[in-house]
Parts: sequence; structure tokens; C-alpha cells
Amino acid sequence: MQAIKAKNYDVVFTDSGYQNLNKILKEKEYSILFILVDSNTHESCLAHFLQQVETSQTIEIIEIEPGEEFKNLETCEGVWAALSELNADRQSLLINLGGGVVTDLGGFVACCFKRGIDFINVPTTLLAMVDASVGGKTGVDLGALKNQIGVISNPQLVLVDFTFLNTLPVEELRSGYAEMLKHGLINSELYWNAVKSASYSDFDSLSELIHQSIVIKNEVVLEDPFEKGIRKSLNYGHTLGHAIESYFMEARDKTRLLHGEAIAIGMILANYLSTKLTGLNINKALELSKSILKFYDLVSFNDSDIEAIITLLKYDKKNSHGNIYFVLLEDLGKPKLNQKASNELIFNAFDFYKNLCNK
Amino acid sequence: MQAIKAKNYDVVFTDSGYQNLNKILKEKEYSILFILVDSNTHESCLAHFLQQVETSQTIEIIEIEPGEEFKNLETCEGVWAALSELNADRQSLLINLGGGVVTDLGGFVACCFKRGIDFINVPTTLLAMVDASVGGKTGVDLGALKNQIGVISNPQLVLVDFTFLNTLPVEELRSGYAEMLKHGLINSELYWNAVKSASYSDFDSLSELIHQSIVIKNEVVLEDPFEKGIRKSLNYGHTLGHAIESYFMEARDKTRLLHGEAIAIGMILANYLSTKLTGLNINKALELSKSILKFYDLVSFNDSDIEAIITLLKYDKKNSHGNIYFVLLEDLGKPKLNQKASNELIFNAFDFYKNLCNK
Repeated sequence: MQAIKAKNYDVVFTDSGYQNLNKILKEKEYSILFILVDSNTHESCLAHFLQQVETSQTIEIIEIEPGEEFKNLETCEGVWAALSELNADRQSLLINLGGGVVTDLGGFVACCFKRGIDFINVPTTLLAMVDASVGGKTGVDLGALKNQIGVISNPQLVLVDFTFLNTLPVEELRSGYAEMLKHGLINSELYWNAVKSASYSDFDSLSELIHQSIVIKNEVVLEDPFEKGIRKSLNYGHTLGHAIESYFMEARDKTRLLHGEAIAIGMILANYLSTKLTGLNINKALELSKSILKFYDLVSFNDSDIEAIITLLKYDKKNSHGNIYFVLLEDLGKPKLNQKASNELIFNAFDFYKNLCNK
Repeated sequence: MQAIKAKNYDVVFTDSGYQNLNKILKEKEYSILFILVDSNTHESCLAHFLQQVETSQTIEIIEIEPGEEFKNLETCEGVWAALSELNADRQSLLINLGGGVVTDLGGFVACCFKRGIDFINVPTTLLAMVDASVGGKTGVDLGALKNQIGVISNPQLVLVDFTFLNTLPVEELRSGYAEMLKHGLINSELYWNAVKSASYSDFDSLSELIHQSIVIKNEVVLEDPFEKGIRKSLNYGHTLGHAIESYFMEARDKTRLLHGEAIAIGMILANYLSTKLTGLNINKALELSKSILKFYDLVSFNDSDIEAIITLLKYDKKNSHGNIYFVLLEDLGKPKLNQKASNELIFNAFDFYKNLCNK
């Protein structure tokens, strides 16, 4: 599969991707190779990965706990201490082998260690493959506030090995698929139709769609690396989605939602807001929303849930001067940025969501 | 005093400097202005600073504990939480009003908050004026390891207000002066002679020398922003100096050394190493070392101190592939990079230091 040229680095795939990786390891003469894993990727992915890596250099493994609740500064501090203890220097390389937590946190760890060492991302979840492969966003959460702390910095290489799709439980596939649906919504009818009709369990067609999703995201990011304009379209569904995800992470009586599950809800809410604020046809909004809901279970919200979620909105990074901005749609494939919605409209959007039938 | 053009920003001085500051505040329309202080600068500098600032925007003050022992991730986490709590957004500005701890830590906090907000540095110590004004280094310590965590990022403006020299205890002036002596050693006989003959208590001539020191550092940094080559010369005395500073910070039976006091020792040790490795004339080394020691008290070291300091060297950021590199001098104003010294030679350098008479 063809490599994708991102900003100053390539995204490469499966077999030939390892040739690129080995070439870099040979040319750059790193002092020590560090591989950051969580306990899941340590067990499911590391052996396969190491089999493909050709190097005579020292390899050290650093393991963190899996899951969003460990994507924080305390985990970073542990990794930084481990790097120091294992004599990492500025010529060391950090390879992040894992899902979005490992690649986001590992990228941040690398950027800040001794004011920056090289890193390579090897995303092992569907979400990380399609979302974290390009864009240079690194970071960790601050309490319940997602990705509040981080920097923008690019890896030396991203290696997407589709073999790792086999290691994923179905809910991880479903979660990642939300970002691909999002790429459809903001990009084109063509890609939307392909994603909405496909299945995340058919890995052959999924691999093709992953490649296409990365191409779409890459084009947006190259045009607007610092999210001054069009890159904001990638936040479709994320303003409310992040708040929903944070709320379900903190609330005692709620089952946690995976990132994509929350984003799917956020996109349906945004579809509704689009009908009121940016002229999206209501029937189109219904059709798009039902297509999304085919992949996800309906989640229930009561009024106090919704109020708490609206309160969390103000911490979203996309806000400015106290205003909350949404990306909405004028039509399928036509995002419109910097839209404001009243709390009343947000309540109405939740009503729209609740009344959808997901069969 | 003339502004200095640094990378993408200016270093401005005292009275006219506030005009530049107020112009930026007017043009950039920040959402909220945050001022980071420690309890010292809160008491001694903030009122004077606020008198000069013209803005109708909300100003929030965030205070941290003073001192190197608080230059860590825990303090950053507190500042990040305060920023979130006070509704900071990406259009907020952080003004760091303080010494090197406040400007280094505050710069790092700004760069990583929501992936980067603008910041302005107002250094209030001599050390921060001459050392932290240019170069873009931000960061915090990791345990005893100085500046292990950080990024390179530039402020919008640096405002050096000489009025703040009046707020400094004499040991702070003495500490900062070491960096100015260093600029003399690596730059030219002309500047060395000016600094070695001046006094840090005469603020008129000190102000001129501060300006000159910033010009010298700025030239080096502009030529080599990422410290691949000549910028390493600014580490003269710092390889051993940092290790000495770390050791005295952690050791229970030692009185702590200020940064400049440790660097002064590190420079004298480097002078000796230069006679053995890079051809510096021994009499010149003696003369330079005695000139440094005129400003500082002799500190005693026993063999186990020296061994512990050598052990700490391996954590220095300038190391690579397990080797420890020093900047040395071929002659006054002629630094030579990437020099290796044996442990035996380092022991001999401490003997040289111990045998100096500081009167």
C-alpha cells in the first residue's frame, strides 16, 4: 500500500513499512531504542513487532498501564524517570507501540524529554491508525479535561501495520470507526457512502478505508497545521463528544464510553444543530444520524446529565473568550466552522438523539 | 536602551520596554492576561509591573513557591489546574514575572497548555535577565536532574526592567554574574576584561553589561538554535556545574549552592581541563580562574563528593551514546566543543580548584 507524505515524515504500511523503519534505524544511528507499550500491546503486539525490526542496537521496553485513565502527567513522569534510569540521551529514539493513549502520551514524553528526542508511532488500534497517525497532536489529560496538556510535534515515521487489527476486541474497532464516519461527513458523499456501507469486521476493505481516511486527514492537516481554520472541521462531533466522554469517565453511576462511542453521539447532536444553524436538510440529518447509529447502541441521558455535559463544554480547547464554538455541516462534505449554539438548542439536540430509532 | 532582535521576538528594556508590552497587549486582544509570580516577585515586583501595564482586560495572578526545589512537574500541574479553573483558553496570555524558575517553568506551562498559548517573560533576577532572556529553553527538573523535561519555544516578548535589580539580595546578583563571566570567557578578551573588572553592585555599568551579555548570547543562539554546534559553547562550565548544583541540592550535609556559584566552580574546573585537552596556557587558566574566584567563596569537596558528582554527570542532557562531553577553551574567547575527559582528569581539576587562593 502506498506511503502517505505527511509533514516532514511518511505514513507507511504493513510489510514494506518495516523496510522504511529499518532504513531509518540504520541511517540515524540512535544510541538506544526505547519501545513504549501498555500491558495489552506488550502481550499482543510486541513480539510480532520485534520480529520485523532489524537492528543491533540496545532495545529497552517501557510499559505503562492501559486505558485513558492513565493518560496523565503521573504516567509521563514515570516514563521520563524510566528513560533517565535507562540512560536515554538526546540521540535515543522512542517507539510508541499502542493505541492513542500510548502514541499521544509517548509523543508528548519524547517532545519534552531533554527538550526533545525523536519518536516513531506504531498505532495498534483502529482509532490510533486513522486519527493519531497524522496531525502531530501529542498530549495527556488533566483530571477529566481531555488532552489539556500537550504540544504539536511530528514523529520521524508512522508505521500502520494492519496485522494489529486482529488483536482488537470488537468494541475497539467500533470506537475507531467513528472517526472514519466523521471523515466521510466532513469530506465527501463518495467516502461517506463507502464508510457507512462497509463493516469494520472485514479487514480487507477496512484496510483500504483506513488508508483513505489517513489521506483525507492528512490533506486537511497539511493545509492548516495549527488549526486556525479548516483543520477545525476534524473536530466535527468532538465538542459535545469530548464533554460526553469526560462526563461518563467521571460519573460514578455511568458505564464508561469509548472515545468513538462518545464521538458518534456528538456527531448526531451536531447533525441536529446543523439543521438549525447552518441549513442542513432535516431529512438528510436524520439519514446521516441513522447511518451512524447503525454501528452504535443508543445511550440514555437525563436532564441533569445534559446540564453537567454543557458545564464541561467550557473546558474544550476550541473555546475562546468564553464562547463555545462548534463545527457544523451545511451539507454532507461541507463543514462550517465557528458556530455558536445556545444551551436550549443543545437540549433539543439531545431530544433528537433520544428519539432516533437505531434499527 | 536599544531593543535586541531575537528569534521572532524582541528583548526590550525598562521604560520603553513597557511601551512595546502595552502595544502587544493592545494588538493581540488576548482573552485573559495571567501573570505567574512566586511569593517573592508577588511582593517585590508585581505592584511596580502592574503600574506600567495599560490594559482593560481581566488580569489573574497565579503564585507558585519560590526556589529551584519547586521547579518540577507538580508545580506545573498546579499552574495548569489554576489556568483551567480560571477559564484560560488558547487566546490567553501568560506573563512570567520572576527569576529563572518562573520563566523556565512558566514558558513550559504555556507551551503545553492546550498545545500552546502565548507567553511573555519579564525576568526579575540577574541570572534570568542574562541567561533566560534569549534561547527559547523552557523546562523543569525531574528529581535532582536539572531541566530534564522541557521544550524549545520562544516568547512573544522579553521585557528586561533594570528596576528589578534593586529587589535582589547580593547572592542573587553574584549568582547571575557567573553567566556574564562565562559570556566573557567564550566570547572575547574585550568583554571578559569588562566583566572581570566590573562590580555587580554598580547598577549603571551592570545594566550596560547585561545588554551586552544578551547580545552575545543572542548571536550564538540565532546561529545555532537547536544546539547542534556553537550554541554548546554556552554550556561552558555547566557540565560539571550542573552536577555540582544537583549534588549540593540533594546532599543532606551540604549547604545549597546557587546556580551561578556552582557554574563558577564548573568554569574553573573547565579551565583546568582546557589546559590538558585543548591547549589553554596554564598561566592563562590560573589567571582566568583567579578572576572568577574573586567573586565567589571557595567551596570544599572531599573524594566521595567528587565521585558522586561524576556519577551525576551521565544524566547531563549534553551526553550522547554514554559519553560525557565538555565545552573547553583553546584560548580566551575560543571555545572548543565535544571534548571528553577521564575521571582521573576530573579529579585533578578539583585539585586545581582546591589549590587556588581566592584573595
